Amino acid sequence: MDDESSDDRHQPNVLSATALSQLLGRGETTSIAVVESCLARIEERDATLRAWAHVDRDRALAQARARDAEPRRSPLHGVPIGIKDIFDTYDMPTSHGSKAFSGHRPTADSGIVALMRRAGLVILGKCATTEFATPIPIGVGNPRDLGRSPGVSSSGSAASVADDMTPLSLGSQTGGSTILPASFCGVVGFKASLTGLDRGGMRHLRPTLDSMGLFARELADIALLNSVLSGRSAVQPPKHVADLRVGVCRTVNWSHAQPETVAALDSASQALREAGARVMDAEMPPLFDDLEQSFQIIATVEGARTMASDFEAHGPTMNHWLQETRRAGPTIDAARYEKAQLHALECQRSLGEIFERCDVIVTPSACGEATRDLTGVSDSAFNRIWTLMHGPCISIPAFKGPNGMPVGIQVVGPVGSDARTIALAQCIGGVLA
Amino acid sequence: MDDESSDDRHQPNVLSATALSQLLGRGETTSIAVVESCLARIEERDATLRAWAHVDRDRALAQARARDAEPRRSPLHGVPIGIKDIFDTYDMPTSHGSKAFSGHRPTADSGIVALMRRAGLVILGKCATTEFATPIPIGVGNPRDLGRSPGVSSSGSAASVADDMTPLSLGSQTGGSTILPASFCGVVGFKASLTGLDRGGMRHLRPTLDSMGLFARELADIALLNSVLSGRSAVQPPKHVADLRVGVCRTVNWSHAQPETVAALDSASQALREAGARVMDAEMPPLFDDLEQSFQIIATVEGARTMASDFEAHGPTMNHWLQETRRAGPTIDAARYEKAQLHALECQRSLGEIFERCDVIVTPSACGEATRDLTGVSDSAFNRIWTLMHGPCISIPAFKGPNGMPVGIQVVGPVGSDARTIALAQCIGGVLA
Repeated sequence: MDDESSDDRHQPNVLSATALSQLLGRGETTSIAVVESCLARIEERDATLRAWAHVDRDRALAQARARDAEPRRSPLHGVPIGIKDIFDTYDMPTSHGSKAFSGHRPTADSGIVALMRRAGLVILGKCATTEFATPIPIGVGNPRDLGRSPGVSSSGSAASVADDMTPLSLGSQTGGSTILPASFCGVVGFKASLTGLDRGGMRHLRPTLDSMGLFARELADIALLNSVLSGRSAVQPPKHVADLRVGVCRTVNWSHAQPETVAALDSASQALREAGARVMDAEMPPLFDDLEQSFQIIATVEGARTMASDFEAHGPTMNHWLQETRRAGPTIDAARYEKAQLHALECQRSLGEIFERCDVIVTPSACGEATRDLTGVSDSAFNRIWTLMHGPCISIPAFKGPNGMPVGIQVVGPVGSDARTIALAQCIGGVLA
Repeated sequence: MDDESSDDRHQPNVLSATALSQLLGRGETTSIAVVESCLARIEERDATLRAWAHVDRDRALAQARARDAEPRRSPLHGVPIGIKDIFDTYDMPTSHGSKAFSGHRPTADSGIVALMRRAGLVILGKCATTEFATPIPIGVGNPRDLGRSPGVSSSGSAASVADDMTPLSLGSQTGGSTILPASFCGVVGFKASLTGLDRGGMRHLRPTLDSMGLFARELADIALLNSVLSGRSAVQPPKHVADLRVGVCRTVNWSHAQPETVAALDSASQALREAGARVMDAEMPPLFDDLEQSFQIIATVEGARTMASDFEAHGPTMNHWLQETRRAGPTIDAARYEKAQLHALECQRSLGEIFERCDVIVTPSACGEATRDLTGVSDSAFNRIWTLMHGPCISIPAFKGPNGMPVGIQVVGPVGSDARTIALAQCIGGVLA
């Protein structure tokens, strides 16, 4: 950031979670020092950025003091994290970005938040989200350029990490809500397999699409956080990309790609090939042609179900996207919904066959640089279909567009192979760095 | 069951899910035939057993017809399942066993229910549960002896499977709610690792304890259902128990064991040793001595948090267990709760060291046969601590007590090794059969 003095670069808030883990483990810093520097950064910048829906300074400091006074619970003991404001916290409000839930105070934690506390992470506060994670922006700034979109819907989760307010944050993805903001803000975003990370107690938007998302500034931090939250060991990244079988997939939505995205996929393919990877074509077969329609049917039917009682109570106050879901949901009958789910399953099987030929797929993260459109719906064309395929997706901030804004490249793996896909993304990230 | 005529034994409702999967796959039966036979059994027996909170005959038949008319989605396509009435279903009421939620109609599915539908399972209805899964019985019968307890809290889930009303059911375990009723009713019960199966959208009772439970009459069915719901391949059970390293653990609550439980653990150890397994002592070190207290602190604090708004609205109508949680929750301060979680973590690490020496632990499922007490609290002494350890637990209905009632034996594995632990339990089950 251009407002950083050289002193700021030595503050703990700019460090990665991996670096903080090491410093805290060796007793070379304290959780209180780390949390204070994050809070200072938030205080300095958030009036401009509006990345946070709620920060409880006293509570964050109390957590840090308690963690400093006890043995380490996990490698992330004492490390701060921000929580997308759709996940319940027993001690902070959860607004779902909606007037309908303004000041709503759940009395218990979502499962993932409880697991974070159990691992000794410090909950800094709640990151701003769009209304019920729909794609209508709500005024969060992109720290790389305030005139451009931070992406939706995990806008605050991505922006706060990009702006060094927190090393880690939690998001979610039902359409493109993690990978898109990660690409726009120039951070690493990880969408877990559908059930790869605990969805316990989550208020669903769409039960067969809602996936957990993680943000960090370094790939190694995603490996560490995913390991702590899943309870599974991280996979050691291969030292060299040689012999890695990488499928390149333009997807059925290639026409949405801006020149910088076309260039990013070309550059990534070439760099991987030159480094010795076995780069191959992994295009979606014709079965995938109508998959966008199946996504829309599933998203609309499940969205209308999950929101039904809130529509009754608060419908007219909600944004136009939700109004449209309310209207369209009942027009789709059960048979069409079932047919769409069957189609999605058939595509998953077909993708499984592609993953017999390649270890991971490389595909665009977004249509291009962050858009100048601060109020319209961002295009998640390179995310929706992957969300429906249920596998792990990682956006690596490897490239720049014509305006110097970040352009991510996405690594996708088979369903359930989250730790391995993260490790392979680390290896690929090393080649693209 | 003594009321079965020889004809009934050929009805599909008595078959295992594995057998049904094969018959359906080969086109030798239909989902409608299977569902009709389950519904007939429920109609015949449930006035006595009271295992179901809600059965929607027409909806179940409509699901079966739809599944029969389309390609198979999974190996369990068209197979019926019952759902513990704490999990939301968009098309049926969810009462949580509580007057406070009588007639409550959620508009969306819990994640796990949505995943079942997506895999083509047929949701038969909701299985009766105690009030918010607390250990106060609610009059479900034990099909092996109506004068004895079916165990709590997944009472209806266990009883319906034991009585051939459904081949499969979903339960949960926060204390002993899956393993105990499985042992009392003489079926196989599986408690997943804390986050081993999707907790999406689950209304938490205690976020760091609530685990998913599965019931079936055969171990192979658990392997199949766990694989379909987790999206992970089942592990092939080893053909022989030779060289399997089995730790025997009497736990810190051994004084609770009735003679039939003492005999069951002895018989299991001896049978495994004779079959060539490497049977070794795996007792809990002194660190575990106070773990019961830590369980109580965590359960009470988290229980009081999750129920806080319901206590406000409906407190006086709730059972005395919930009243006590309401009273006791606020008396435990944050520091005591954090100390209890740290203690649980330290015990988990210690158990991890034990699992370096042995592949699985064998331990009692319950204190003894199903009790004659139909109104009191069942003793979950052999379950609570394992729930707190977060690993997979399986109860195998291998033994009988002095009254001819089933006595289960429990196989416990390391956190996250669910598929492997099921496979090893299948191998052990073969020896004990």
